[in-house]
Amino acid sequence: MDLLSLDATAQAQAVRDGRVSPRELTEAAIAAIEARDGALNCVVHRRFERALAEADAVPAGAPFRGVPILLKDLGWEQAGEPYAAGSRVYEGVPMRRDSYGVTRLREAGFVFLGRTSTPEFGTTITTEPAATGPTRNPYDPAYTAGGSSGGSAAAVAAGMVALATASDGGGSIRVPASACGLVGLKASRGRVSSGPALGDSWNGFSTSGFVTRTVRDAAAALDLIAGFVPGDPYDAPALPGPLAAEAGRDPGRLRIGFATAHPRPDVAVDAAPAEAVTRAAALLETLGHEVEPGFPEALGDPRFPRVFGAVVAAHVAATVENAGRIRGREVGLDELEPHNAALVDAARRHSVTDYLLAAQWIDAFRRRMAPWWAEHDLLLTPTMAVEPFPLGWIPSRDPGLAMERTAHVVAFTSPFNATGQPVISLPLHRTAAGLPVGVQLVAAPGREDLLVRVAAQIEAAAPFAHPAM
Amino acid sequence: MDLLSLDATAQAQAVRDGRVSPRELTEAAIAAIEARDGALNCVVHRRFERALAEADAVPAGAPFRGVPILLKDLGWEQAGEPYAAGSRVYEGVPMRRDSYGVTRLREAGFVFLGRTSTPEFGTTITTEPAATGPTRNPYDPAYTAGGSSGGSAAAVAAGMVALATASDGGGSIRVPASACGLVGLKASRGRVSSGPALGDSWNGFSTSGFVTRTVRDAAAALDLIAGFVPGDPYDAPALPGPLAAEAGRDPGRLRIGFATAHPRPDVAVDAAPAEAVTRAAALLETLGHEVEPGFPEALGDPRFPRVFGAVVAAHVAATVENAGRIRGREVGLDELEPHNAALVDAARRHSVTDYLLAAQWIDAFRRRMAPWWAEHDLLLTPTMAVEPFPLGWIPSRDPGLAMERTAHVVAFTSPFNATGQPVISLPLHRTAAGLPVGVQLVAAPGREDLLVRVAAQIEAAAPFAHPAM
Repeated sequence: MDLLSLDATAQAQAVRDGRVSPRELTEAAIAAIEARDGALNCVVHRRFERALAEADAVPAGAPFRGVPILLKDLGWEQAGEPYAAGSRVYEGVPMRRDSYGVTRLREAGFVFLGRTSTPEFGTTITTEPAATGPTRNPYDPAYTAGGSSGGSAAAVAAGMVALATASDGGGSIRVPASACGLVGLKASRGRVSSGPALGDSWNGFSTSGFVTRTVRDAAAALDLIAGFVPGDPYDAPALPGPLAAEAGRDPGRLRIGFATAHPRPDVAVDAAPAEAVTRAAALLETLGHEVEPGFPEALGDPRFPRVFGAVVAAHVAATVENAGRIRGREVGLDELEPHNAALVDAARRHSVTDYLLAAQWIDAFRRRMAPWWAEHDLLLTPTMAVEPFPLGWIPSRDPGLAMERTAHVVAFTSPFNATGQPVISLPLHRTAAGLPVGVQLVAAPGREDLLVRVAAQIEAAAPFAHPAM
Repeated sequence: MDLLSLDATAQAQAVRDGRVSPRELTEAAIAAIEARDGALNCVVHRRFERALAEADAVPAGAPFRGVPILLKDLGWEQAGEPYAAGSRVYEGVPMRRDSYGVTRLREAGFVFLGRTSTPEFGTTITTEPAATGPTRNPYDPAYTAGGSSGGSAAAVAAGMVALATASDGGGSIRVPASACGLVGLKASRGRVSSGPALGDSWNGFSTSGFVTRTVRDAAAALDLIAGFVPGDPYDAPALPGPLAAEAGRDPGRLRIGFATAHPRPDVAVDAAPAEAVTRAAALLETLGHEVEPGFPEALGDPRFPRVFGAVVAAHVAATVENAGRIRGREVGLDELEPHNAALVDAARRHSVTDYLLAAQWIDAFRRRMAPWWAEHDLLLTPTMAVEPFPLGWIPSRDPGLAMERTAHVVAFTSPFNATGQPVISLPLHRTAAGLPVGVQLVAAPGREDLLVRVAAQIEAAAPFAHPAM
C-alpha cells in the first residue's frame, strides 16, 4: 500500500504502529516530489537533507510524528529559510523567525520538506508567478491548480504529501481546494494567530489553514494552530472542544440554504459549479437536512467587490513597503507583476479616510450578512463561480482583465473573508472532463465545529476520490 | 437612608424587595440631577418625562429593574435621542438606532435619564467641550472631572446615579474614574460589541464600559454588555463565567509588578500618583500577594505616543467625514475644536500606507508587551501620570500643548488600549487637598475575571469613600 495515499492522520498512526519510520515516510515524500514536481512545478524551495535529519529527531510522543508536510511560501515563515511570496522583491533574504503555525506544526511532529508556490503576494487566484512559472493541475497540466495556495493544493492532490499549509484572504484555500479536488477549511477570523509577523492580515480577511484530502485531517490540523496567543489582537468565538472530535458526530437536522446563481446580477455562474451545488443540495437532503434555496440579501450588494478590493489593495501597498524595509531598498512598481503594480498604484491614490470608510463599509456588510444565520445553519454555494479554467486565462499582462476575472472567480468566496465566517470547500463534483469542482458550506462565526460535523457526514456518504499517481 | 448612595446592585435589590418603586428611584435621581447639575454641568441632554414613563413599564423580572442610569454622549446611541459627541457638527440629528449596549441595558431594566458630557469626539482627557462648557469635579469645582467620560464620572461621583456608561480609547474610563474617585473597568478588546454602528472603534483601541462606585457594579454591568454579537468582527478570549460571580472569590497569591515612575524617560510622574502606587503596593502585599517593582520593557518605547496618536488621528478624520454624511453637508476644519482640527489635518497628510504601518507597529508593540504577563499576573501603575489638574490646564486654544499634556496624562493608560488588555482603575488615594487619585491594575488579555477578584479583595480591605452630597 502506498503510504503517501493515506491522510496525515493515518500516516501518523502508521508511524505509531511501527509500520513505517519517520525517515522512511520522509524519503517516500521526497521521492514523490522528485518524481512529480518536474511536471507540476509546485515546490519552489526544497530542504530535503535537513528534513531527513529532522525526521530522525522528532520526539516519540508527537501526535503527527514524522508526517511530511509542505509550507506555502506566503506567510508560514520558517526561520533560516528563504521567503519569496511568489515575488522577486524579497531577494532571498532568509526569515529570522518561525511563524507560530510553523512552531506548532514542528511541535506536533511534522517534517518540513520545503515551500510551495503562490502568485505574487497571493493577490490572485491562479498560481502563475512570473518569478517561478505556473503551477500545473495534477488532473490536467494545462489547467490551473487555483490560487493563491495553488502550489500546496497541487502537491497534496499529486500525492507528494498528505496535507500542506495554506492561507485564505479572498478564497485562497478554497479555490485551490476546489480546483484540485481537496478539502479546504477556512477558519473564523481570529481563530488562528498571524503572529509573530502580523497582528491580523488584510484587515482580518486572511487566515492561515491547510489543504487536505480528508475532513478529519482538516479538523486535526486546524486544532494544532488554533487558539489565542498572548499578543494577538483578538480571538474568535470559543469552540466547544477540539475539532477533530467533531468528525463523526451527528450534526442533527440542519437548515441549509443554497444558491446556484449569484445574488449579484453581474456574476454569471458557470454550469459546472451550479450543477455541483444542485447535486450537493440533493445529497444533503438525503442525509436528512432541510435544504431550500436561499441566501443573505446583502450578498447581492454590487458595491462589495470594489470596496473589498480597495481594502486589500491598501494592504498590498503596505506589504510592498515592508518588503523594501526587509531588503533595505525601496521596491519600485516596475519590480512588481502588473496586477500588483496596479493595486499598489490604486492604493497610493486613496487617502487614509477612504481606507477607513471602506473598512467601515465592510463592518456594516458583516452586520447585514449576520442575521441570515440566525434562521439557517449553513449556506451552500459554489466555491468558484466559474468552471475549472486553463493556465493563462487570468492574463498576466492585462491587469484590468486579470482583476475582473479574479473578482468573478472569488464572487462566492471573498464575502466570507469580509465577514470572517468559517467556510469549508468540499470536492463533490467533477466536470465531464474529470476536473474537480468544489462547493462551499458557510457557517455562522465561530462554528467550525458544525462544518466539521456536516463535512464528515458528507464524506462518509460520498467518499472523495483522489487521482491515482 | 439615601437610596442614591447605594450602588446599582443594592438599588436593584431595594426595588426587588419592594422598599422603593422604579418611579420613586427615578424621581430621586431626577431630583439629584436638578439639584446638583447646575454646579457640575455633566448632563447635556435630559429625557426625564420619558424616563418616568419607562420606569413604570419595566418588566418585573429585569435584574436592574428601575435603576436610573445616564449614557455617555459618545457612542451609546439611543434611537430618537440627539447625539453630539461634545461637538456642534452633528446639529442634533436624532439617532436612528440603539447601540447594542443600550438595548442590553434596557432589557436589564435600567432607566435612561439622559446623556452626559464628553470632550469633542472623546479625543482629550478633560471634559471641557466648547459646545456645552466644562464639566466640574464634584470634589472641587475648579478641577477637571477627567475625560472623555467626565460627564458620566461627575454624575456618579455626585450621587446622581449609581453608575453611568463610558468608553475608553486612551484612558477615557480610567482617567475620569481616577479624577472622580470611582471604579473604572476597561474591558479586553473584543469583549464588548461596538455595534451596530461600528465593527471596532479606533483600530480596536476603544471599548465601551462604565464608571461605578463599587467593584461588584463594575462586574455586573460589564456582564450585561459583554459577549460576541453575530456581525461583530471578532471576540475576546472567553471568560470562565459571569464576572459578578468573581467578586468575593479568593484571587490566590498573585505575582504583581509595580511602577511608580514611567519607563519612558520623558514622562515625569507627579508625587501623588507615585504615592498612590506605593501605598497600593503595600496594601497588596498585606493581602498576601508577591509585589515587586517591575514592568514590561516595551512600555518604555519612546515611539509609542506618536504612533498611537497617528492611528487615533486617522479615525478622528473618518469620524468627521461620517459626521458630514450624517448631517448631509461636509464638516469644515473651522467647525472643529482646535485640537481636533489639528488631528484631522495631520491625518489627511498621512498616506494609507503610513496608517497601516503605524497599525502594524502597534501590533508588534502588543507582541512585545505580552510576554511580561507570562511571568506576572498584574501590573500596578498610576492611572494618571499627573496629579489632579484644574480646568483650563489642557489649553483649548493651543493644540500642540493640549496634545502634549494629554499624552502626558495618558502615558500609563493608552498603552493598554493599544494592547487590548483589561485594566481596572481603583480609587485608593487622595491628595492632601482631598482630591481622588486612582491606580490601575493591568491583567493579561481576557482576564477581567482576575481583575474583579483582586479589586473586590482590595475594596473589602480598604473600602472606597465617596463624597457626601
